[in-house]
Amino acid sequence: MDLTKYYQSFISYLEQQDFNREPKNLYTPVDYILQLGGKRLRPLLTLIACDVVSGSFDKALPAAMAVETFHNFTLVHDDIMDEAPLRRGKATVHEKWDVNTGILSGDAMLILAYQYFENYEPVVFQKLAKLFSKTALEVCDGQQLDVDFETRNDVTIPEYIKMITLKTSVLVAAALKMGAIVAEANDETAIALYNFGLNLGIAFQLQDDYLDTFGNPETFGKQIGGDIIENKKTYLYLKCLEIANKEDQEKLQFFYNQKLEDNSIKIIEVTRIFEQNDIPTLIQNLIEEYTQKSFEDLKQLNISESAKESLISFGKNLMTRKV
Amino acid sequence: MDLTKYYQSFISYLEQQDFNREPKNLYTPVDYILQLGGKRLRPLLTLIACDVVSGSFDKALPAAMAVETFHNFTLVHDDIMDEAPLRRGKATVHEKWDVNTGILSGDAMLILAYQYFENYEPVVFQKLAKLFSKTALEVCDGQQLDVDFETRNDVTIPEYIKMITLKTSVLVAAALKMGAIVAEANDETAIALYNFGLNLGIAFQLQDDYLDTFGNPETFGKQIGGDIIENKKTYLYLKCLEIANKEDQEKLQFFYNQKLEDNSIKIIEVTRIFEQNDIPTLIQNLIEEYTQKSFEDLKQLNISESAKESLISFGKNLMTRKV
Repeated sequence: MDLTKYYQSFISYLEQQDFNREPKNLYTPVDYILQLGGKRLRPLLTLIACDVVSGSFDKALPAAMAVETFHNFTLVHDDIMDEAPLRRGKATVHEKWDVNTGILSGDAMLILAYQYFENYEPVVFQKLAKLFSKTALEVCDGQQLDVDFETRNDVTIPEYIKMITLKTSVLVAAALKMGAIVAEANDETAIALYNFGLNLGIAFQLQDDYLDTFGNPETFGKQIGGDIIENKKTYLYLKCLEIANKEDQEKLQFFYNQKLEDNSIKIIEVTRIFEQNDIPTLIQNLIEEYTQKSFEDLKQLNISESAKESLISFGKNLMTRKV
Repeated sequence: MDLTKYYQSFISYLEQQDFNREPKNLYTPVDYILQLGGKRLRPLLTLIACDVVSGSFDKALPAAMAVETFHNFTLVHDDIMDEAPLRRGKATVHEKWDVNTGILSGDAMLILAYQYFENYEPVVFQKLAKLFSKTALEVCDGQQLDVDFETRNDVTIPEYIKMITLKTSVLVAAALKMGAIVAEANDETAIALYNFGLNLGIAFQLQDDYLDTFGNPETFGKQIGGDIIENKKTYLYLKCLEIANKEDQEKLQFFYNQKLEDNSIKIIEVTRIFEQNDIPTLIQNLIEEYTQKSFEDLKQLNISESAKESLISFGKNLMTRKV
């Protein structure tokens, strides 16, 4: 699937947005984070969904922009909460300015996201805004569960899948459904695209967890082992704890109770325990399972076979990504 | 004007809202701040506006709830930015929980506010959400200006009035206009009510500035002199700097460059300089001016004379308040 036309249209629409407004200290950070780049995966999905349903995608640009603005709002606030200094290799907003600027500019972005829906007539507007509010609140729920899990030692794998579903995949799903709403698709089509996104989003996040430990440092972009350093209870950790022998379990729990200055040995050891317990294969199997589930959802979809093939090839590309 | 029926209806609607949901760490703070009390001025204005236009106000309850939820969202995030330990005599959210909880629960409240508009059909929904987004962004602009003013020494009185208009009075104005929208008032009526609120809101904030220094400590609720302690460049300070002789100007600037442990002398001295320069009278005159302007706006309004009298008596009560 050639994504270039969607990407170029989106970037050109993004660049038309004028954040050169007063007060400067509020809108300069908004412009900064939106210009930092990234895969633009979510807004592209809005455009693609609109295109496969209606054969054109320009009218989905404001909805795509709403999705990207919201996504970047979550990054700004999450980076404050995680005290993250870097985002896409550049200083985070609260680092470049300060925490208060991050809070307030983030708030403004959440409101700006809603404003993009004003480009649509009332019935479409209400459908988009309702889906958006529901999704945005679920993302907050997911972020809260993620925070709660930090201090819990009894997180189960189903709970983890629920957390990443809320924190990541509902937005991927909603991005697709918004494209369908703009294209005035019927409910069946909109729901099938939503479900496709929901399963693809889970696969995507699990792939992210995999790459965080097993990715190629030259292509991944983030520090390899970041989740291990942060003691993040991802699928890798939870599954390993479930199936490892007592010795490995105890080692793993020992390392995940440490906050270290030098993490090199911790990363090597934890990675070795994961490998010894076949976790890379197990997570790859699960990713494949969710990816296949997402392709199943497409079967319900009343669009051309070539459009379905496009969505499948998009999904496959995403799952073989190294970044 | 008997406000009891509006107040009781609003509180009973508020108590029907169920924030006893998961994740608890996200929604318990939402419930906490919404139950802290306060005058409920803004939601009451939504109900009153709906009532004077259409003769009933129950249908405006969700819009009133949106306004109150948004107002409390701004309190939660502003209290983080101001590092305020207390709100209405109780611990602020970030103090009772932590900063991250304050950020995330605040975000959820902003989204929850939008969801209340889902109670209305698409055309009314879009009108309410558009006005709400515009207003919410203006409130962010106002908060940013307030932050910017802290480090500026050349703030003018018109700039100050603009800042309080954005930070406080656009929401008072929008609260009234939302009641008019729900009542399906014509544009002229909605605009007149908006303007009434805009001027009344400025008078209200100036009154707040006045009471912060000259209020009765037994009835005001907040610490008298709080703005002086914080070196807030309110109208009292800006006007005094404009008209005082060189000696008083220099004393004032000296005090406003201090951050002290013990503020008792600073408060006494600054208050004395204000009084010596007749600032209490000047601000009272300005409050009266904006209050009269707001009553003028009511003349445009095509509602019964007794309804106008009610709004005027509401405004007068607000301006003679001691709390």
